[in-house]
Amino acid sequence: MTAEGLPMVVPATDLPARVRIHEVGARDGLQNEQRTVPAEIKAEFIRRLADAGLTTIEATSFVHPRWVPQLADAEELFPMVSDLTEVALPVLVPNRRGLDRALALGADRVAVFASATESFAKANLNRTVDESLAVFEPVVRLAKDRGVHVRGYVSMCFGDPWEGAVPLHQVARVCTALKDMGCDELSLGDTIGVATPGHVLELLNLLNEEGVPTDMIGVHFHDTYGQALANTYAALEHGVTTIDASAGGLGGCPYAKSATGNLATEDLVWMLQGLGIETGVDLGRLTATSVWMAAHLDRPSPSRTVRALSHKDQ
Amino acid sequence: MTAEGLPMVVPATDLPARVRIHEVGARDGLQNEQRTVPAEIKAEFIRRLADAGLTTIEATSFVHPRWVPQLADAEELFPMVSDLTEVALPVLVPNRRGLDRALALGADRVAVFASATESFAKANLNRTVDESLAVFEPVVRLAKDRGVHVRGYVSMCFGDPWEGAVPLHQVARVCTALKDMGCDELSLGDTIGVATPGHVLELLNLLNEEGVPTDMIGVHFHDTYGQALANTYAALEHGVTTIDASAGGLGGCPYAKSATGNLATEDLVWMLQGLGIETGVDLGRLTATSVWMAAHLDRPSPSRTVRALSHKDQ
Repeated sequence: MTAEGLPMVVPATDLPARVRIHEVGARDGLQNEQRTVPAEIKAEFIRRLADAGLTTIEATSFVHPRWVPQLADAEELFPMVSDLTEVALPVLVPNRRGLDRALALGADRVAVFASATESFAKANLNRTVDESLAVFEPVVRLAKDRGVHVRGYVSMCFGDPWEGAVPLHQVARVCTALKDMGCDELSLGDTIGVATPGHVLELLNLLNEEGVPTDMIGVHFHDTYGQALANTYAALEHGVTTIDASAGGLGGCPYAKSATGNLATEDLVWMLQGLGIETGVDLGRLTATSVWMAAHLDRPSPSRTVRALSHKDQ
Repeated sequence: MTAEGLPMVVPATDLPARVRIHEVGARDGLQNEQRTVPAEIKAEFIRRLADAGLTTIEATSFVHPRWVPQLADAEELFPMVSDLTEVALPVLVPNRRGLDRALALGADRVAVFASATESFAKANLNRTVDESLAVFEPVVRLAKDRGVHVRGYVSMCFGDPWEGAVPLHQVARVCTALKDMGCDELSLGDTIGVATPGHVLELLNLLNEEGVPTDMIGVHFHDTYGQALANTYAALEHGVTTIDASAGGLGGCPYAKSATGNLATEDLVWMLQGLGIETGVDLGRLTATSVWMAAHLDRPSPSRTVRALSHKDQ
């Protein structure tokens, strides 16, 4: 550790020189917090994240307000931040209606949210996997026609709470379907946090064999069993350069029964900084932002790095 | 995840087939907990850990009772567990007096605790690094003469709260000194949890160059910044097969100001199990033991795996 509260920089061989962090705290994080935050606070959160050096900040979701009350203010929020032209601000769109709402506000990056398992497709989307892909196909096509960048999330890639193990070929089928319909990038979600590094590498290898190049793959790990950063390291060794993370570990409460939180962006940045991998993120500013947001949510951040760095100042 | 609440087994290439977990919860863990646990509970804890399949369980410390009141009952505790002949039960000995006390009770594995930095040697041992090595030398020699296995801890290998960065050659000097005086194994401690994987690999490579073989090296990571398991994965890739961990993450309170806890054994076992690396540990029994101990300490376990698996049953 250096005097500035940062890790010593000691690169490892054969890792990427630069990583793009896809920051999901404002969408995936706040969507899973009990307390709903006012639009003004969300907008300030996104501005602070941009100021901390994050370049891709998922802003909100144009899902029906009844389904996700925490993000029911998408129409109000998005125009409050859309002047941040230096930053990519993708938004989630569940269907054609959501895409229309996003396009009307000038969104130029959207994401669809697919499932690798039938059980989660049924529970989350109330459709079969194929039915949901059929819903996404015209959404992705229209978005691409409008020159909009499309990310395809694939949830439950490494395990499913109802089905248990998820066959890798099933994940690969959903991934190639999303790629074939025009998605620019994929995000492989370990929604319940059960993956381990060998499992991650096997899926990445299979996807490469199936024609999905590593440079269109992002990884989205949850820290339910503490595995997120080890899995990330394995993915880096494979060459993955897009990593999803949530500022302060938003979305997983350390005191709730199921602490299924996202990988905390600060824990990720600590590792990448130590490895000498560029992210453009200022860890001190990011930590201050997460401490500020934790106060609005009235609970401490579950990120170990946030706790360690913020206690250092006290 | 399988139906049994275990990760899917997907090995990665070129990792060790088997790992020995050096369980430190009963010593390093309890030593750093606020609440002191009665000797009977400590003995039951050690028996439960053995029953869960752990084969090396650091039992206590023969330090002066005034220094570590939590472990002041070493003389009472050790005979309560020394019938566990199938399990290695190393004990910490700070000096000749501690070694004599341990030998008098029949201990056949001891550990000495050195520092890689002058600041921590002064703060923890009230000696310079060289003075402390001079104290250990006759201790190690006498132990070896009695056929006792000796572990040498080296703390602050990757950073020091007073000095910041720690030069690797300084760490290597202490390691080779301990090896040369007869230590059978070393444990590289990231006492403040700041290491990242490249840093770990660079130290392991340097030690190999200096004549310290990988098979005498154990790693001891703390999860202060969430890096412990990623660092462990890197060490496994290097070929390390001895990994220190603390059942339930004992020794680091998630609610205290400085959550400088040890790597939780359960989080480690989840990863090793997923990687198909044998440990002999039954994760369910181990988790039940940590939940039981957390009740005695009157606080939840900081281990993410313990939280996830124990909430599953509720």
